[in-house]
Amino acid sequence: MENYKELAKEKMRKCRVCKECNGIVCAGETPGCGGKGNGSTFIRNVAKLKDVRVVMNVVSSNDEVSTESDFFGKKVSLPVYVAPIGGILVHYGADMSEYDYTKALVDGVGKDSIVFTGDGQNVQALLDPLKAVDDGWIVPTIKPWVNEEMKKRIEMVKTSKCSVCCSDIDAAGLVALKKGTPKVEFKDITQLKDIVDCAGIPVIFKGIMSADAALKCLEAGASGIVVSNHGGRVLQDACSTIEVLEEIVDAVGGRMKIFIDGGFRTGSDVFKALALGADGVLIGRPFSIAAIGNGSQGVRDYLNTLQEELKDTMMMCGCRKISDINRNCVKVCF
Amino acid sequence: MENYKELAKEKMRKCRVCKECNGIVCAGETPGCGGKGNGSTFIRNVAKLKDVRVVMNVVSSNDEVSTESDFFGKKVSLPVYVAPIGGILVHYGADMSEYDYTKALVDGVGKDSIVFTGDGQNVQALLDPLKAVDDGWIVPTIKPWVNEEMKKRIEMVKTSKCSVCCSDIDAAGLVALKKGTPKVEFKDITQLKDIVDCAGIPVIFKGIMSADAALKCLEAGASGIVVSNHGGRVLQDACSTIEVLEEIVDAVGGRMKIFIDGGFRTGSDVFKALALGADGVLIGRPFSIAAIGNGSQGVRDYLNTLQEELKDTMMMCGCRKISDINRNCVKVCF
Amino acid sequence: MENYKELAKEKMRKCRVCKECNGIVCAGETPGCGGKGNGSTFIRNVAKLKDVRVVMNVVSSNDEVSTESDFFGKKVSLPVYVAPIGGILVHYGADMSEYDYTKALVDGVGKDSIVFTGDGQNVQALLDPLKAVDDGWIVPTIKPWVNEEMKKRIEMVKTSKCSVCCSDIDAAGLVALKKGTPKVEFKDITQLKDIVDCAGIPVIFKGIMSADAALKCLEAGASGIVVSNHGGRVLQDACSTIEVLEEIVDAVGGRMKIFIDGGFRTGSDVFKALALGADGVLIGRPFSIAAIGNGSQGVRDYLNTLQEELKDTMMMCGCRKISDINRNCVKVCF
Amino acid sequence: MENYKELAKEKMRKCRVCKECNGIVCAGETPGCGGKGNGSTFIRNVAKLKDVRVVMNVVSSNDEVSTESDFFGKKVSLPVYVAPIGGILVHYGADMSEYDYTKALVDGVGKDSIVFTGDGQNVQALLDPLKAVDDGWIVPTIKPWVNEEMKKRIEMVKTSKCSVCCSDIDAAGLVALKKGTPKVEFKDITQLKDIVDCAGIPVIFKGIMSADAALKCLEAGASGIVVSNHGGRVLQDACSTIEVLEEIVDAVGGRMKIFIDGGFRTGSDVFKALALGADGVLIGRPFSIAAIGNGSQGVRDYLNTLQEELKDTMMMCGCRKISDINRNCVKVCF
Repeated sequence: MENYKELAKEKMRKCRVCKECNGIVCAGETPGCGGKGNGSTFIRNVAKLKDVRVVMNVVSSNDEVSTESDFFGKKVSLPVYVAPIGGILVHYGADMSEYDYTKALVDGVGKDSIVFTGDGQNVQALLDPLKAVDDGWIVPTIKPWVNEEMKKRIEMVKTSKCSVCCSDIDAAGLVALKKGTPKVEFKDITQLKDIVDCAGIPVIFKGIMSADAALKCLEAGASGIVVSNHGGRVLQDACSTIEVLEEIVDAVGGRMKIFIDGGFRTGSDVFKALALGADGVLIGRPFSIAAIGNGSQGVRDYLNTLQEELKDTMMMCGCRKISDINRNCVKVCF
Repeated sequence: MENYKELAKEKMRKCRVCKECNGIVCAGETPGCGGKGNGSTFIRNVAKLKDVRVVMNVVSSNDEVSTESDFFGKKVSLPVYVAPIGGILVHYGADMSEYDYTKALVDGVGKDSIVFTGDGQNVQALLDPLKAVDDGWIVPTIKPWVNEEMKKRIEMVKTSKCSVCCSDIDAAGLVALKKGTPKVEFKDITQLKDIVDCAGIPVIFKGIMSADAALKCLEAGASGIVVSNHGGRVLQDACSTIEVLEEIVDAVGGRMKIFIDGGFRTGSDVFKALALGADGVLIGRPFSIAAIGNGSQGVRDYLNTLQEELKDTMMMCGCRKISDINRNCVKVCF
Repeated sequence: MENYKELAKEKMRKCRVCKECNGIVCAGETPGCGGKGNGSTFIRNVAKLKDVRVVMNVVSSNDEVSTESDFFGKKVSLPVYVAPIGGILVHYGADMSEYDYTKALVDGVGKDSIVFTGDGQNVQALLDPLKAVDDGWIVPTIKPWVNEEMKKRIEMVKTSKCSVCCSDIDAAGLVALKKGTPKVEFKDITQLKDIVDCAGIPVIFKGIMSADAALKCLEAGASGIVVSNHGGRVLQDACSTIEVLEEIVDAVGGRMKIFIDGGFRTGSDVFKALALGADGVLIGRPFSIAAIGNGSQGVRDYLNTLQEELKDTMMMCGCRKISDINRNCVKVCF
Repeated sequence: MENYKELAKEKMRKCRVCKECNGIVCAGETPGCGGKGNGSTFIRNVAKLKDVRVVMNVVSSNDEVSTESDFFGKKVSLPVYVAPIGGILVHYGADMSEYDYTKALVDGVGKDSIVFTGDGQNVQALLDPLKAVDDGWIVPTIKPWVNEEMKKRIEMVKTSKCSVCCSDIDAAGLVALKKGTPKVEFKDITQLKDIVDCAGIPVIFKGIMSADAALKCLEAGASGIVVSNHGGRVLQDACSTIEVLEEIVDAVGGRMKIFIDGGFRTGSDVFKALALGADGVLIGRPFSIAAIGNGSQGVRDYLNTLQEELKDTMMMCGCRKISDINRNCVKVCF
């Protein structure tokens, strides 16, 4: 089952495919797959997840465990989604086109999950991946270009039949994207509102790390956010995502969907985020390794593993369906 | 005295008999003797025990220290019991029959302690060990089979004259036991009640990690529970047993007996659990190593060491009998 | 950009120019560049900074980030100043005169920052560096000599047109300066007041580690303090500067300027201190390495890096100008 | 100055004279110089001292620092005393008689400090060291023998003109002393009172680790206690001394003297205990290394170093005399 990891090792020149993917040996390797600067944000994402412990509770019914969830009306097999990653060659040193990469992900997860796709200055970086699906089971993730450009691109992606779109607004801090054309920019509430209005479909803003920013997204009409620090790749010395999740959940109070990414590797990691109030988890690097290593089969294998682990954890913690997972199911030991 | 460890090293192909048995090098080795998945639950069991410190207090009488305790009417020399372990070949890679293994334990502890015995799909795994005693100084521990099967087995074990029986209900999560026949299942209060009613002797439920589950066992009529995460072998990323003990003790309020296992190695470890409110401690791996290494003599040696260490700790902490050990005897530094 | 580090390695016989300058390998090397005694104060300065995490917040305007600040009426490009360091040969084992060293710093930072200069028993140690400027963009830092001598030296430095002067009053603890002539001494409020009165220009006292000492400086008429433990080089086992900053800020309540030094290396480190209420940060060792390694160009390179990092952090945390940085911009996880 | 360490290395077969004496490599080496069992009590003594940080405060008078203190009417140069250690050959593997050892200590410290001497089943172990002084500058420390024997020995030691005597009542737990004759025993309040009454001079009880035990000593008429866990050599998994000091100080409220030992190595360590309310600190191992390494000169060198370090710390923390050292002088970061 871990076969794809061995295969990936041969194909990735910039990722060591460590036994535990924790950001330590690759710290500072950007471009490459490491965290920015001293790498501490990436490392902390992984480390702090370990300080959340699951509470076993076996006195419960023997009903089948279901990990089924809903993503804006689409029924998925588990609330785990593939994070948007582009630049396969640049970041992983792997010879795989963005289309092939996306195709492997999309075919691998089938209708069990949904793939977020990436974007780049060259608009093909946005459009190529979309060709991998024809039924809208995809979430195009657009960079925070100047609004005019963003709106144009939103129109373009809507032809993919997607019913939700996303923008990783923390990419406004990416040095590479501040040069050339178009340029990324930071967005205030007014601009975010403008984008939401233009989209006409639910919009998710990715890169939220505080209650303040979350509430601003809500005010702008967002349908969801992704609590994310871009995998530790846009800012060193930041908080981990898991340690800010709960305060954001509390502030939002159920008024929009809250997803999270950053250092999630296993089904028990996913369980922890759900227990702290997340509606779903995005996973990046491990899916990349699976896709690069063994294509759609690798992706399928990894997704199956995740689902088994999540089921296992739910089963052992007295949860039979996703909505059973609540705050009492974990102890936070930060 | 530690002679049995050297002997065990030669006989166990799947356990390294480390100087400190802490779950680190064997992490993930299941089958084998390691913790499940990343092994962090096993590791945490051991690690968190170190954060409980005993409070020395030497101003006290010079009376002899007695470690005597009571196990449901049976007078034992110390409140330490042998945890139920089966599958000696599978888990430890040692060529020793379940009967011989149990015999070594039973002969080794004599009337000073009580051995919990194991179970398996093949009913002989339950019955063979019971042949090692003829006076009921044993606690048969039945897997959480479907209730009909459980009841049958309860009837069977009662012929051993045992006065208490146990079920490790967290074994419902063991992958191996979900296939073949009979199957294990999770139990709700009604089912647990059914088992208690059927048994007609005191029943202990093992695998409790929360006040909620403990109270459900109490409601079902249990006479005792074992705070346990199956040695970290049924779920990764769980809490350690020692860190949930106190809240369970508080919730139960003396209405049933509370035992604990998970990472206990020494008499000072045992003392810590008693100080936090446990009525007794089950120890697994070290007894297995002793039994496999040097049979009943190894077991006797280890039990003697435990008693000496427990006496030592009690003596130095101003406790002359088990009931003197209280919450003020430890500082919890989690 | 890190070129100067490679060059410095060759020129410094007493500093290893480690990848991360954290005081570990050089612990106890005084004279030399390590922390005093067991080195734990230096090490803690660096370590505790890591426990302050910045709070990313990208929902904001796209306005340009300005790091501009004010130092007693002088407009600087960023609130980072060069800490006073003397004894280049003794402490770093580098063949560079105090004048050349200061010249490299002064030319390197230009009008973007301000250099604090050092002092020594031989008055030339104070005066030589001052020759490197002719417009007062410098802060002469006088040792706490007996007051008569201090006053003399204050008069001398005023000819440099400096508009502020400083005294590192914690140098009273330096063994080397208690021998020979003149001698350093500890100062009480009366003596500090005497110095402030004599100076006639704003005076900053450096080496403050408690609210009590800060309030005494305030009472003595100081215009500012530097929260500092002399880089861990005057006392082992002390607190880190970052962990005492906030209580000092609270006690002072804006009635004088508060600077800080000790273990700051990057723009994100600077951001943390500003968020906890500092008005500016002094950086020593890294500027020394830059100056010794590649002269004014090295200093310029390092200052540019710092500014870029600070801008980056501000940008990603929703701050567009220095005054936007506030307590909510960091989480303290000591 | 550290010359004696090099010399000691050659003379001690059971102590490695590590750069930092922290109980790690010698864990479990008893007899020998390590902590009992897993060695964690010894290790924790040293480790927890590092979590107490001194608060630098340089705004103060320039008065000379005096470390002078009083030990039951005797004026000493600093409140640091030599802990009672016997069995030089057994514990350190050094060929030095108990008399020569004590003589080196007594001559080394002169009237600047006071030496506590040891005891053993053979009464000469108690009496031989006393021959090293003729003016009572010594504190004979008697094991907690059965009271009749203790009283006999108290009478014997009083011929040494000592004005205070001590009993390390935690030695009641030493396995070696429970065999042979005379035997040690635990003492309750009545027995302690009996000893105090018999002594007729101030009595100090050593081996106190809780407020409860301290109050019992007080009730028995003790003039002082030593907060001690016997250097981690009588009980594994205990608290460190520094972490229980403050609650004992609070409970006692100045009604008797409180000394402490366990892991103290430097003058800054001593300062920390004084700040937390101790009246003095006993130091063992480092004095043994000094005495074995270079006799009275080694002891003198180490005592001088301690005093210099204590002075340094006091000076830098605004303390000019021992009574200036108070709770605000440290931050406890356990």
